[in-house]
Amino acid sequence: MGKQILLLPGDGIGPEIVAEAKKVLDVVNDQFQLGLSFEEDLMGGCSIDKHGVPLADEALEKARQSDAILLGAVGGPKWDKLDRAIRPEKGLLKIRSSLELYANLRPAMLYPQLVEASSLKPEVVSGLDILIVRELTGGIYFGEPRGIRTLENGEREGFNTYKYSESEIERIGRTAFEMARKRNKKVCSVDKANVLEATMLWREVMDRLAPEYPDVELSHMYVDNAAMQLVREPKQFDVIVTGNMFGDILSDAAAMLTGSIGMLPSASLDKNGCGMYEPCHGSAPDIAGQGIANPLATILSAAMMLRYSLSMTDAADAIEAAVGKVLDQGLRTADIVTEGSRKVSTAEMGDAVVAAL
Amino acid sequence: MGKQILLLPGDGIGPEIVAEAKKVLDVVNDQFQLGLSFEEDLMGGCSIDKHGVPLADEALEKARQSDAILLGAVGGPKWDKLDRAIRPEKGLLKIRSSLELYANLRPAMLYPQLVEASSLKPEVVSGLDILIVRELTGGIYFGEPRGIRTLENGEREGFNTYKYSESEIERIGRTAFEMARKRNKKVCSVDKANVLEATMLWREVMDRLAPEYPDVELSHMYVDNAAMQLVREPKQFDVIVTGNMFGDILSDAAAMLTGSIGMLPSASLDKNGCGMYEPCHGSAPDIAGQGIANPLATILSAAMMLRYSLSMTDAADAIEAAVGKVLDQGLRTADIVTEGSRKVSTAEMGDAVVAAL
Ligand SMILES: CC(C)[C@H](C(=O)O)[C@@H](O)C(=O)O
Ligand SMILES: CC(C)[C@H](C(=O)O)[C@@H](O)C(=O)O
Repeated sequence: MGKQILLLPGDGIGPEIVAEAKKVLDVVNDQFQLGLSFEEDLMGGCSIDKHGVPLADEALEKARQSDAILLGAVGGPKWDKLDRAIRPEKGLLKIRSSLELYANLRPAMLYPQLVEASSLKPEVVSGLDILIVRELTGGIYFGEPRGIRTLENGEREGFNTYKYSESEIERIGRTAFEMARKRNKKVCSVDKANVLEATMLWREVMDRLAPEYPDVELSHMYVDNAAMQLVREPKQFDVIVTGNMFGDILSDAAAMLTGSIGMLPSASLDKNGCGMYEPCHGSAPDIAGQGIANPLATILSAAMMLRYSLSMTDAADAIEAAVGKVLDQGLRTADIVTEGSRKVSTAEMGDAVVAAL
Repeated sequence: MGKQILLLPGDGIGPEIVAEAKKVLDVVNDQFQLGLSFEEDLMGGCSIDKHGVPLADEALEKARQSDAILLGAVGGPKWDKLDRAIRPEKGLLKIRSSLELYANLRPAMLYPQLVEASSLKPEVVSGLDILIVRELTGGIYFGEPRGIRTLENGEREGFNTYKYSESEIERIGRTAFEMARKRNKKVCSVDKANVLEATMLWREVMDRLAPEYPDVELSHMYVDNAAMQLVREPKQFDVIVTGNMFGDILSDAAAMLTGSIGMLPSASLDKNGCGMYEPCHGSAPDIAGQGIANPLATILSAAMMLRYSLSMTDAADAIEAAVGKVLDQGLRTADIVTEGSRKVSTAEMGDAVVAAL
């Protein structure tokens, strides 16, 4: 009953940070006798370079066979001029969609040791702990028809379709309610129901689900107000649930509230809890290869993977505690360094987590 | 050659704040012999109550005949349960669209006197002065087809269409470049060109316009990153140009960075510079009728109206200077009050601006 993990290091700083997470996983694998085995494959720009496509069928098949996937990050300027169909991001969208990883969990929490790193006042963000539940396989990201066409008057028009069906809304709604149950029992559903029909249905379905979760308080907020409230008083939120596009925007804003996006993991789950885990940050091509990236978001993503997809709670707890310890020791990569702390490299940070285990 | 102003006080705190702006306009009208005359009509919930529709044809016709429009705010819980077609917001969308007010200018600037009110650290926001140029008559707000339909499997689906034509993009792009010329000569165009075709065309058109404005520096940013950068380092921006939906979200986030959304005016202009002016904040039904709302955003919207649509620069300057003076005097409405300042009512604030003129 060994578990199979697929590593997809990807582009930019991806390989560096996944290497550190692998170090950490190797240690807990021994310590807790988890029986994990690892495979590795290409996704993103590196796959375009080798196979001409951002995600080869073979890699997708391996992903399907795995119990969980750990991803670094994809993309970079090198591939920015390519035709849209074979851009690195397409690999990410394809794996999300093919494996039906519809539930994207993006926690935004502030480590007490890092409250200084935030651009917000300490009293506004200290103790911040929100979970954004983003729908990941529908909405305008995947809606058809889409494209660029020529109008009768000769000019071109770009168009996309934003759509959600009741069942798509219901399943992500349930994820949010269930997550809230394990937390502070509040769900805020974000939409633009005063303008968009697709989100009117969204609101209706959320309201319909609510009585099934009487212990959870449901509220609704328009997306423009939500963007404002995240800046004004982020601690009012517990779980935020929203569609793919709004979730993309709000989760990045929420992550940045903590000032240390290099610390934030994420999970993308299917209906059985199988999933892909990745840091919230991107591939940071500008600092790739320099050994200065922060591996902690990826290490914490590995912990999330053990917890959510593999039910290896003890090992997950141990990794999270070890990360807390290295922060207490004052170790910081360049992105979160402050006066009085000690600046370390990517590998030194990984080694410190290993030592703390 | 008198100029005709249409006042649309609207709902909630709308009538209270427009009344103060009217006081101020009356004074400069005399002082500078502007020859302004005023009419008033209904839009939003108040119009639904009287005429059954959020904007009657007669009011729209008056708006067409006017040289400029000053709006308070529309909407409130009283009308939230109505059918979508006659909700207060529809009046706003109809006037924007019928008068082709495609260029929405939303400045987010921090008054030095109010730096405390921001939830961000003073060094991150002090001196902040960004202009968001939001496309206001296209995109997903108006795209067809739209609605809620029943699928073959019996469940319902909500859908909207996001689209932009080259000419729509070009005209708002030109507005942004021209605004940047009068400011710090930087335009950041925000899109999601790595996923949405509609915004790929957006990016292409912006790039095509750029050589016509060699004195302005154009950059591109994905919307998720823009939401992050607004939180992280907002002063990196000068002019941000984006579509209707992204502009709705980002302009509210940007406004909230200042901590005093009760201070921020906005303009919605057509191709001749005729336009509608309104505060960035909403109708705040929770505090309506209490005489505590902040009228300064509406007073500053009136100043913007004199400047942009009526070329009455001296009067606009005078109003803006008067607002600065009352802030220097330490007068604050409830939303921006801090220790050591004097709390005043809506009417007292209006009177103070009049006195400072
Ligand atoms: C790379 C891009 C396609 C992706 C998205 O928009 O979903 C990223 O921004 C994310 O949030 O994971
Ligand atoms: C009331 C609503 C329709 C409107 C919009 O979304 O445009 C408002 O949020 C705004 O930004 O002016």
